[in-house]
Amino acid sequence: MSQDYVLERPDWALDPGAMADRCAVFIKETIARTGMNGVVIGLSGGIDSAVAAGLAVKALGPEQVFGICLPYKTSNPDSLADGLAVAKALGMPVETLEITPFVDAFLAQRPDADPVRQGNVMARARMIALYDASQATGRLVLGTGNRTEWLLGYTTLHGDEACGLNPVGQLYKTEIRLLADHLELPREVLSKPPSADLWEGQSDEEELGFTYAEADRLLYHVVDEGLAPRQLEALGFKPAIIERVIARMRSQAFKRVLPPVCEFDRPGPENG
Amino acid sequence: MSQDYVLERPDWALDPGAMADRCAVFIKETIARTGMNGVVIGLSGGIDSAVAAGLAVKALGPEQVFGICLPYKTSNPDSLADGLAVAKALGMPVETLEITPFVDAFLAQRPDADPVRQGNVMARARMIALYDASQATGRLVLGTGNRTEWLLGYTTLHGDEACGLNPVGQLYKTEIRLLADHLELPREVLSKPPSADLWEGQSDEEELGFTYAEADRLLYHVVDEGLAPRQLEALGFKPAIIERVIARMRSQAFKRVLPPVCEFDRPGPENG
Repeated sequence: MSQDYVLERPDWALDPGAMADRCAVFIKETIARTGMNGVVIGLSGGIDSAVAAGLAVKALGPEQVFGICLPYKTSNPDSLADGLAVAKALGMPVETLEITPFVDAFLAQRPDADPVRQGNVMARARMIALYDASQATGRLVLGTGNRTEWLLGYTTLHGDEACGLNPVGQLYKTEIRLLADHLELPREVLSKPPSADLWEGQSDEEELGFTYAEADRLLYHVVDEGLAPRQLEALGFKPAIIERVIARMRSQAFKRVLPPVCEFDRPGPENG
Repeated sequence: MSQDYVLERPDWALDPGAMADRCAVFIKETIARTGMNGVVIGLSGGIDSAVAAGLAVKALGPEQVFGICLPYKTSNPDSLADGLAVAKALGMPVETLEITPFVDAFLAQRPDADPVRQGNVMARARMIALYDASQATGRLVLGTGNRTEWLLGYTTLHGDEACGLNPVGQLYKTEIRLLADHLELPREVLSKPPSADLWEGQSDEEELGFTYAEADRLLYHVVDEGLAPRQLEALGFKPAIIERVIARMRSQAFKRVLPPVCEFDRPGPENG
């Protein structure tokens, strides 16, 4: 098991206390502005949803934060246990809803679907459950996707990407770890290797071919500092990694914008 | 059965031939730019998906446009027949996939869900099927939502709203009808009253409390001409209708933008 997360704060990372305060204000203000009854959040047992839940509890109090654990039959049983442990630690209400029956009812009609397609169906089935709970209770779906995932497109469109508000979308994975530590979330959630938990032993970092710590540092230099490949190489990044990260950012950019819509010229108020 | 659609072109509506040409160029260019293998489209048997399919066939040829009919057990059987008739008339490949098994597997765990929640689950189940087909075949999901629905929020977020490109999102329902006529789509699709077909006899216009023709004219004056309520009354619109349409536009505006994400100050390339 990889344990390469760092709880020392890299020089580029934001201050954990300041991040937590700002996120809490954002959640509080968004809920007040929309007039909703709090938030609903899918608790995967991972660090991202745990941090988002912790921030929401900080902002709204535990009664306004409703958790749903959404296991599939192949999910690691630890994931459900960890999701429930997060809810317990935060004192928030939680329920469990198995997505297996409806995911399998779909996949039975698509027996040729590979694990990636299957994973997207699971992510979208969870979205259905969260949006249905949102509508039933008048709560907004709390997004949990971070900046690293967002930039690398490591999300399912209309799946885990779907939300009504997202406090952590501009924070790198490294900063999510700092926040988890700051919020004193259960240790087991902090220390496990990041995984979409679609099959046993799946690891984000193995699939990506680089660690989140490495990706974050590189993305920070590319996106926030605007460095060119030559400058990145001077900082010690391998050309192959630079190329892979930038190619992935570009190929996944469509997930970060609304879809293209055909435009027409209509006479406007000025020239009509 | 209401037959109040008008095939005469109102003075504010765009020219059907020009709309069709522009949409076809948009579809062709978007597919070329993204390098995808054409489009996949859910054929509901209604006029919106029929027009979108017709435009895609005009742009790409019938072989590049793949239709899926996605009936639920309560769908009107005419809807499936009309969806298949559209595919046949356009010469495009089509398959049928029942969403009943997976929708019902979800709803069995939510027996208290009212018809609106049920309808949203169906719309999102169709999204899952379309996005899965998109991934399996390398085709983009073709959006079918028009400007009237878009402005009034008469769509399901992450359901029928979800797409990879949308040729008709800036066109009013009245203009979709003109396009359907121009594209010579099957007559039965043109003449039936608009419905989400979630239960028997459901009618968009009855639910909205105004006809699409009325809504379109009003929306055009509000959105495209920027007229104030007093000016709209002078044009003969009832104050209650003006108020209802504007309130609905505002309350549904959240569906037209990306969700709010908490922002942080980071040193940028200039000041870092």
